[in-house]
Amino acid sequence: MQEQIRVGILGYGNLGRGVELALRANPDMKLAAFFTRRDPAALKTLTPEVPVYGVEQLKEMQGEIDVLVLCGGSATDLPVQSAEYAKYFNIVDSFDNHAEIPAHFARCDASAKEGGKVALISAGWDPGMFSLQRLLGNCILPNGSDYTFWGRGVSQGHSDAIRRIEGVQDARQYTVPVPEALERVRNGENPVLTTREKHTRECYVVAKPGADLDRIEREIKTMPNYFEPYDTTVHFISQEELNRDHAGIPHGGFVMRSGSTGVNGETPQMIEYALKLGSNPEFTASVLVCCARAVYKLHAKGKSGAVTIFDVPPALLSAKSGEELRKTLL
Amino acid sequence: MQEQIRVGILGYGNLGRGVELALRANPDMKLAAFFTRRDPAALKTLTPEVPVYGVEQLKEMQGEIDVLVLCGGSATDLPVQSAEYAKYFNIVDSFDNHAEIPAHFARCDASAKEGGKVALISAGWDPGMFSLQRLLGNCILPNGSDYTFWGRGVSQGHSDAIRRIEGVQDARQYTVPVPEALERVRNGENPVLTTREKHTRECYVVAKPGADLDRIEREIKTMPNYFEPYDTTVHFISQEELNRDHAGIPHGGFVMRSGSTGVNGETPQMIEYALKLGSNPEFTASVLVCCARAVYKLHAKGKSGAVTIFDVPPALLSAKSGEELRKTLL
Repeated sequence: MQEQIRVGILGYGNLGRGVELALRANPDMKLAAFFTRRDPAALKTLTPEVPVYGVEQLKEMQGEIDVLVLCGGSATDLPVQSAEYAKYFNIVDSFDNHAEIPAHFARCDASAKEGGKVALISAGWDPGMFSLQRLLGNCILPNGSDYTFWGRGVSQGHSDAIRRIEGVQDARQYTVPVPEALERVRNGENPVLTTREKHTRECYVVAKPGADLDRIEREIKTMPNYFEPYDTTVHFISQEELNRDHAGIPHGGFVMRSGSTGVNGETPQMIEYALKLGSNPEFTASVLVCCARAVYKLHAKGKSGAVTIFDVPPALLSAKSGEELRKTLL
Repeated sequence: MQEQIRVGILGYGNLGRGVELALRANPDMKLAAFFTRRDPAALKTLTPEVPVYGVEQLKEMQGEIDVLVLCGGSATDLPVQSAEYAKYFNIVDSFDNHAEIPAHFARCDASAKEGGKVALISAGWDPGMFSLQRLLGNCILPNGSDYTFWGRGVSQGHSDAIRRIEGVQDARQYTVPVPEALERVRNGENPVLTTREKHTRECYVVAKPGADLDRIEREIKTMPNYFEPYDTTVHFISQEELNRDHAGIPHGGFVMRSGSTGVNGETPQMIEYALKLGSNPEFTASVLVCCARAVYKLHAKGKSGAVTIFDVPPALLSAKSGEELRKTLL
């Protein structure tokens, strides 16, 4: 039997736990160690037989880890960690700050090249699988329009923004694509859609006792960038209802390429990719894990530097041989 | 400005014409020549300024063609042509006889390696984009089920089968996915579906004057493999109606991966890829053309042998640089 690919997880939040679970579904890979900035002895994982180390021990573990999956956040963790560890390990991250991707790529590329490692950045579903679908759609149908819709799903950033309002105890925000907009795109109308026409925002808010509900609702609906450009609905519910009905982290969305072919663009052609995810972090983690396999294989072929899903021959994401893939999936 | 990629087209039916048109949408590529087994002087193309040569002149044109796109059929043309020309040219074909793909790959691989060329086989949408989506779905969600539905669209093979029945003048057959089956899959039911439960077949038939319509309908509905395993409806119409209402070659379909993640597979995850194609050959041709670009780049990197879409880093399908792709589409 072939050796298993040894994977390390840095950061044990929802995403780290998702990677831990996804590895169980991939027998060619093995969870080798957790790394945490917290007290390792206090970290309770779902896989107690796998050791937990403090992050300061990470660099000593180069011989034990084939690929390090970074499970921190894009705001402050990954901008530092990815470039730092790409020198010592093959890494995969889910850096999702679109505007900062070129700079993040450049930093990781330099670091990974210095260490002779491969760094696959911005994996997941958006950026990630949605990006790949946008690329494919653009290559196949150069004459066309791109549409990306997100939801129905929980936006952590918008939920956090509501929680920062005075008098709010807890909140959950759902991003929802406007059905009429989806239908217009599907019908090949190639509409120009405003922000307001594409998505609505649904907020479930638990107010503190005695808080001014009207003021809270007004502050939400007029919050610049986050809510003001959207049609927003606010529902006040109890903490019990929030815990009972809104505990999950579902998400999803649609990438569409509406194009045309023919002598004068007379032939409509439509590509649609849709995700309906019971858990955003578990799905993202599942993408990170097959990307970790690809990173391992790219490194074994002598590749070094930063890459994205755009650079990965899809067969490398699979544990199966090219022959088997051609026979069963082509 | 960078040199344009010079493309040759072998075979000028619906697919060859589609490639001719798709190249117009890709300014980094150039249609260099048509090759035909017919009399070149008699071939009327949409691009009269591009020369038409007899197929016997093809091998003399190695210096003029960067990639040859083979536009013949999978039954008799491609099994011979692809392996023959892969020795002399980088090629792309749309070989779609799934059971024969491993043997076709092996023949093209040997030939392309002998000539130091790249042969990308079985490009298009199925095999092709649908295959790629099946692969991605399997890699991301190892615990899950695959579903592929075709249609609503014209099946040339089934239309031909009806035309061979005595008393039939012309016919068009549509393959139609069963809406209830699609819904069950979308709902995450992971149903086990029989052939009959997945697709129905709609036939539009022009009978010759005086033909026995009951016999024709019976012969269609009981035809083994083609129609017997399906619920089939037969509509007799006039040649004028067929020409007026059924002249197009639309097609499409759905690839779905219904999977689960979590500690005990408790989290449903659904991926759906859908195509709605105004013209099957024009879409297939559009895929072949971006694959031709990738083949050119793979060859320039020193690669030789047979490949499929599974082996192509997606960025190579695009005319844009990696930097531009990361900035605009990631």
